[in-house]
Amino acid sequence: MEKLNKLLEAEATNIERPDEEEGRDCSSNNLHQSLLKRNRTLSSNQLAFVGTKVSHIESLDYEINENDLFKQDWRSRSKVQVLQYIFLKWLLAFLVGLLTGVIATLINLAVENIAGYKLRAVVKYIDQERYLMGFVYMAGANFLLTFVAAILCVCFAPTAAGPGIPEIKAYLNGVDTPDMFGATQLIVKIIGSIGAVSAGLDLGKEGPLVHIGSCIAALLGQGGTEKYRIRWRWLRYFNNDRDRRDLITCGSSSGVCAAFRSPVGGVLFALEEVATWWRSALLWRTFFSTAVVVVVLRAAMEYCKSGECGLFGKGGLIMFDVSGVSVRYHVVDIIPVAVIGVVGGVLGSLYNYLLHKVLKVYNVINKKGKVPKLILSLSVSIFTSVCLYGLPFLAKCQPCDPSLPDSSSCPNTGGAGNFKQFNCPSGYYNDLATLLLTTNDDAVRSIFSINTATEYNIVSLIIFFLLYCILGLITFGIAVPSGLFLPIILMGSAYGRLLGMAMGPYTRIDQGLYAVLGAASLMAGSMRMTVSLCVIFLELTNNLLLLPITMLVLLIAKTVGDCFNPSIYDIILELKGLPFLDANPEPWMRNITAGELADAKPAIVTLNGVEKVGRIVEVLKNTTYNGFPVVDCGVTTSMGSSPNGANELHGLILRAHLLLVLKKKLFLKERRRTQEWEVIEKFTCMDLAERGATIEEVTVSKDEMEMYVDLHPLTNTTPYTVVESISVAKAMVLFRQLALRHMLILPKYQAAGVSPVVGILTRQDLIAHNILSAFPHLEKSKANKKGH
Amino acid sequence: MEKLNKLLEAEATNIERPDEEEGRDCSSNNLHQSLLKRNRTLSSNQLAFVGTKVSHIESLDYEINENDLFKQDWRSRSKVQVLQYIFLKWLLAFLVGLLTGVIATLINLAVENIAGYKLRAVVKYIDQERYLMGFVYMAGANFLLTFVAAILCVCFAPTAAGPGIPEIKAYLNGVDTPDMFGATQLIVKIIGSIGAVSAGLDLGKEGPLVHIGSCIAALLGQGGTEKYRIRWRWLRYFNNDRDRRDLITCGSSSGVCAAFRSPVGGVLFALEEVATWWRSALLWRTFFSTAVVVVVLRAAMEYCKSGECGLFGKGGLIMFDVSGVSVRYHVVDIIPVAVIGVVGGVLGSLYNYLLHKVLKVYNVINKKGKVPKLILSLSVSIFTSVCLYGLPFLAKCQPCDPSLPDSSSCPNTGGAGNFKQFNCPSGYYNDLATLLLTTNDDAVRSIFSINTATEYNIVSLIIFFLLYCILGLITFGIAVPSGLFLPIILMGSAYGRLLGMAMGPYTRIDQGLYAVLGAASLMAGSMRMTVSLCVIFLELTNNLLLLPITMLVLLIAKTVGDCFNPSIYDIILELKGLPFLDANPEPWMRNITAGELADAKPAIVTLNGVEKVGRIVEVLKNTTYNGFPVVDCGVTTSMGSSPNGANELHGLILRAHLLLVLKKKLFLKERRRTQEWEVIEKFTCMDLAERGATIEEVTVSKDEMEMYVDLHPLTNTTPYTVVESISVAKAMVLFRQLALRHMLILPKYQAAGVSPVVGILTRQDLIAHNILSAFPHLEKSKANKKGH
Repeated sequence: MEKLNKLLEAEATNIERPDEEEGRDCSSNNLHQSLLKRNRTLSSNQLAFVGTKVSHIESLDYEINENDLFKQDWRSRSKVQVLQYIFLKWLLAFLVGLLTGVIATLINLAVENIAGYKLRAVVKYIDQERYLMGFVYMAGANFLLTFVAAILCVCFAPTAAGPGIPEIKAYLNGVDTPDMFGATQLIVKIIGSIGAVSAGLDLGKEGPLVHIGSCIAALLGQGGTEKYRIRWRWLRYFNNDRDRRDLITCGSSSGVCAAFRSPVGGVLFALEEVATWWRSALLWRTFFSTAVVVVVLRAAMEYCKSGECGLFGKGGLIMFDVSGVSVRYHVVDIIPVAVIGVVGGVLGSLYNYLLHKVLKVYNVINKKGKVPKLILSLSVSIFTSVCLYGLPFLAKCQPCDPSLPDSSSCPNTGGAGNFKQFNCPSGYYNDLATLLLTTNDDAVRSIFSINTATEYNIVSLIIFFLLYCILGLITFGIAVPSGLFLPIILMGSAYGRLLGMAMGPYTRIDQGLYAVLGAASLMAGSMRMTVSLCVIFLELTNNLLLLPITMLVLLIAKTVGDCFNPSIYDIILELKGLPFLDANPEPWMRNITAGELADAKPAIVTLNGVEKVGRIVEVLKNTTYNGFPVVDCGVTTSMGSSPNGANELHGLILRAHLLLVLKKKLFLKERRRTQEWEVIEKFTCMDLAERGATIEEVTVSKDEMEMYVDLHPLTNTTPYTVVESISVAKAMVLFRQLALRHMLILPKYQAAGVSPVVGILTRQDLIAHNILSAFPHLEKSKANKKGH
Repeated sequence: MEKLNKLLEAEATNIERPDEEEGRDCSSNNLHQSLLKRNRTLSSNQLAFVGTKVSHIESLDYEINENDLFKQDWRSRSKVQVLQYIFLKWLLAFLVGLLTGVIATLINLAVENIAGYKLRAVVKYIDQERYLMGFVYMAGANFLLTFVAAILCVCFAPTAAGPGIPEIKAYLNGVDTPDMFGATQLIVKIIGSIGAVSAGLDLGKEGPLVHIGSCIAALLGQGGTEKYRIRWRWLRYFNNDRDRRDLITCGSSSGVCAAFRSPVGGVLFALEEVATWWRSALLWRTFFSTAVVVVVLRAAMEYCKSGECGLFGKGGLIMFDVSGVSVRYHVVDIIPVAVIGVVGGVLGSLYNYLLHKVLKVYNVINKKGKVPKLILSLSVSIFTSVCLYGLPFLAKCQPCDPSLPDSSSCPNTGGAGNFKQFNCPSGYYNDLATLLLTTNDDAVRSIFSINTATEYNIVSLIIFFLLYCILGLITFGIAVPSGLFLPIILMGSAYGRLLGMAMGPYTRIDQGLYAVLGAASLMAGSMRMTVSLCVIFLELTNNLLLLPITMLVLLIAKTVGDCFNPSIYDIILELKGLPFLDANPEPWMRNITAGELADAKPAIVTLNGVEKVGRIVEVLKNTTYNGFPVVDCGVTTSMGSSPNGANELHGLILRAHLLLVLKKKLFLKERRRTQEWEVIEKFTCMDLAERGATIEEVTVSKDEMEMYVDLHPLTNTTPYTVVESISVAKAMVLFRQLALRHMLILPKYQAAGVSPVVGILTRQDLIAHNILSAFPHLEKSKANKKGH
């Protein structure tokens, strides 16, 4: 009270001459105020697992920074430049599609050929009954391929391990995970993916393709790598987080499209699972990208049909083309379909649960260094080889059934397809070898195949299912590029087909369709997507008549799965510690206000509109904040000068821009406002987009420390704000919907001597987990969860 | 300056005893302040065309109203209630799908039978060469059917005329158009749609089905009509604008799904075209609704296959099922496909332009009263009958070609299908009659039919195309339920097939496919959708091989169309004067601040936290505002009492809640705060959701006028706010993204005596057109349009 009165007095002496008050620093208000605050416990942990490493992460800046320079930039943007921008936008979308399509084709080509020649050689040894030699050859080849993939990931790009989809999801949510979208990552991902998939590991190229698409998009957007960059003037339009976000969305949907040859599914996948913010315009652009991918893939397949691509058969795509088959089902078939859905939901959430446990253990191992990581990967490879090669010996040889389609090629002594002979005599085939001694894609095709009710023995399928359950859990976390789609499809199709066999006489649905539905249900049960999965399966199977039952299965499986735990991607996001902002606030967030949250944080640091260089350097050195409110004190208001000299909130300035000012040394001898032209002469818009500078790089002499800087021209004059009395729930909705990085908190009181800004909220402050650790009493009310 | 000093003085005397200051009205600040404002020109026109009538419109309240009662309500919501809510949510989604599917089937059944028996009778007359009698019969039947449809629309439900999609789009954007989703509208729409479609008018049931789906959803959500309502306790959860919005989104996607039997397309249509705000949870729920619709439609079709449904053939659905046909095209076919796209874009935007002109003329006619409206509709019906019956006589009879498929039924003497005999001798058919003397759905099927290159004469197709261009323009605006999809498909398919004929020898694509592509291109050129149209066509044609070229056509047509004018729905929205908030702010909005906008409005009216009844009545009588800021003056702040007595912004109160207080007479003898329990005793959450009361309904005695009301418990304490210096562009993004109704503007200055709120913005204030009329100088800068 006394302090405030004193302050008021001080203000009162300054009426009408705000420019004369040299030494007074009105932002010191805040320093005093902060003494009154009680608890400062809301800690912001800016570390997260990126790939398999712990890294420092930052938020992205999607907000338009409306400072004087931006206005200048925008005003000068002529029609020609707008057209350049639009043209480039579409050109980049085209290139993203084109390159993703080409790289997907190359990966398919490489995998099919490497794995194909490997398997042929193995089959030759088996024909000669040199079983041990066959095993050594296969295990050796798999070991080598895994080694290549793992050593690349471990040494050059740890972030290339895994699918990359959670990190992309986090990026599009506004979390900048470092080293995700570079050229090294791209190359390692491509080679690593080829190696890991050819090695017969239980993983797919689908997830990595999504990451590859995003890398391509990011690299194209910035015109090359960090070091070697095309200095094309047009590319400056894309040197901001907003346009980069759009490009990466295009890239991720192109990736899904390339993985499944599913253009609409790719767009919907990006919409439903990956992207946080979506605009109608983006729908259209991602659609264009995926259309290009499809054209490229189709052209490649046409070309390869002529046999120019070695063992590259159907393009390595899981195609379960049943468009020619008339699918029949009846109302009573809803019962088995519902059963598949329920089982899929239960198994999917169980898989999520177990995978979470396994990944936690793996994290401990991976933290120990490069060698343990490598050993883990190679052990999994050896285990996989042993199982894939050894288990078929357990299966009984089955006689070829001439009534089955394709039985003309039974037994099959080499290449892809059903009815592998393996160790069986002529006229017999080994059904387990058909599923195991092949690429994963081919295994899916075989298990999906229709009108082959008697092909697989029930014991073989059970072995297959159990094996892939184990492999699916132990393979995902190793240090190679790996997707989640294929392992889940393999597991799901196996149990679907088993269920179909069990239903046998009571249903009219084919066993192959059961396998498809099983795969769909397990995916929905684990990944919790609906529409996009439905469309992907629609585009895979190319038969619309399947749509209603697929929808039903997906809906049931997702509903059941949601009862137990969150989706696998959310689990991985949490495990990695990425500060992902959910769409909906928790209900208990209505019981706490933004002001209370701000109180729990360290005191806010504000800068004066015209600030001393020394103070800026001090503030930058002593804090890690990336944004600072700029306040003018004792100014003349528009209604004539106010008696006390009002305090004006001018806006928010970014750390990057403060560093820029210090670097460019736009210093003033006296405390005065600069003219607009003085600033524009010194800065270009390109400068403003630069990030990553640190205070250590800046050298300021002692004389300069006593000089002034006018921060007004570089301040974002229109930051979004909330009043301190707003509930955190509403503040979070605002923060997330508008994709903010900083949100200023204003006082709800209007009075003299009150600072016009009482706090600042960032992404970390709004993460439920962080709030709960600072305000444990909210935990109790958490129980009353609202079911939105 | 002087005034402010005086105020300050007055405030100073009130320190520490804010509750004693009986007569002082701190909201009078604003009245004084307002005198300083210069121009008040930003007018808000709250009138719009609804259906064909001019009505008063209001905004919807999607924001969560966090007042004391809401908190009470939410806290008491037990787990059981949450489960009730979730169960009901899904039950309603199921019922929306079920009812929409059933009604769609009924409409199809009725249309096919009425139109079928009508056409059979006409054909009989023609067989007997009683041509005049045939015409009289046909024109008479059409006249009667049109009369029924039009008289219902004109007399009972003017809003049921037209497709209703623009109004639904506006509703989901937050504009509450009255009389849109009632029981009368639903019934009139169903009967009117049957009548209008059976009458052979150039319109479809697709648009009306979307409206029907939305009506069903709205009625289900409120448990019946305004008058007869189920008083089920559970339904109270849905008595708010947010849940109603979700339901109506489900309804509209179910409608599209029912129209085209396209479940994924329906969801995407709602996502891309209709809905303004979209959540992932909604994707899932709408998907569930459309799945139910598909199951219902499929069951109905199965049942009708047995011949129990009269002339109901393929369910009245435009099915161009080419799944069995192997579609072939090559890289060079990209050229004709691109040509179709470009032509579709040009024609589509031309259609938009001309339709706009026609609708303007029609608006003038429709305003003149009921009889002119009716005459207009009936004239169009007669004109249509004359053309449909008369034009086939111009066509030459063509010999049946036995090499064509289905030629076994050539000539066709009755029922649906190709090769109508009409006036031709045996062995010959009249190709124009095949297209005209049939239902629109059948015409589309005929023109889409594949491998029938020689069936249609080029002259006949030109006549058909021109006729439907004229009909498409003059039919849409008449007072019957009408959709835009079918007229556009008819036009588009005709020019597509013509183009296919012209290309003839240079292409491998079938003419039927050209027709499909033509229809797609014209739809994209006029409606400017991409992904949803693509999926709808995919689901219609049931052939994924068509996907890449369909995508290409749609992308080109939309791009070309966007160069000329906005989409047809946007044009209609503007014509109706509905204040639709666009997703992106105009670039010139960065040059004006929210404060300037507030200055241009009439002075803001604030209420005291504890307000005199008399003043509330006066304010409600003299203003039309629906929200009032609530301000406490001279309060004690949290930092000990401030010397001047700070002014505190408590929140925003809605007109509806003020009226509620007056009605319930929660008056106080002295100026004091009420206890929470006093309020909770009087109000339930149900009360808070009530709308539509007017000040005229309230009677307050003279004594009561002198009493007080404590507004605190009913005030939304957490309204969203912006600082006056924010640009309108950013304010609009906030307003639109968070689906607000009112947005408070805070001063950027902190000083004593300043009101804590300087203005309030509503939807109308942010409409580009309204701003430009108040600030004409912005018009100039409008030229530099940014190409986002």
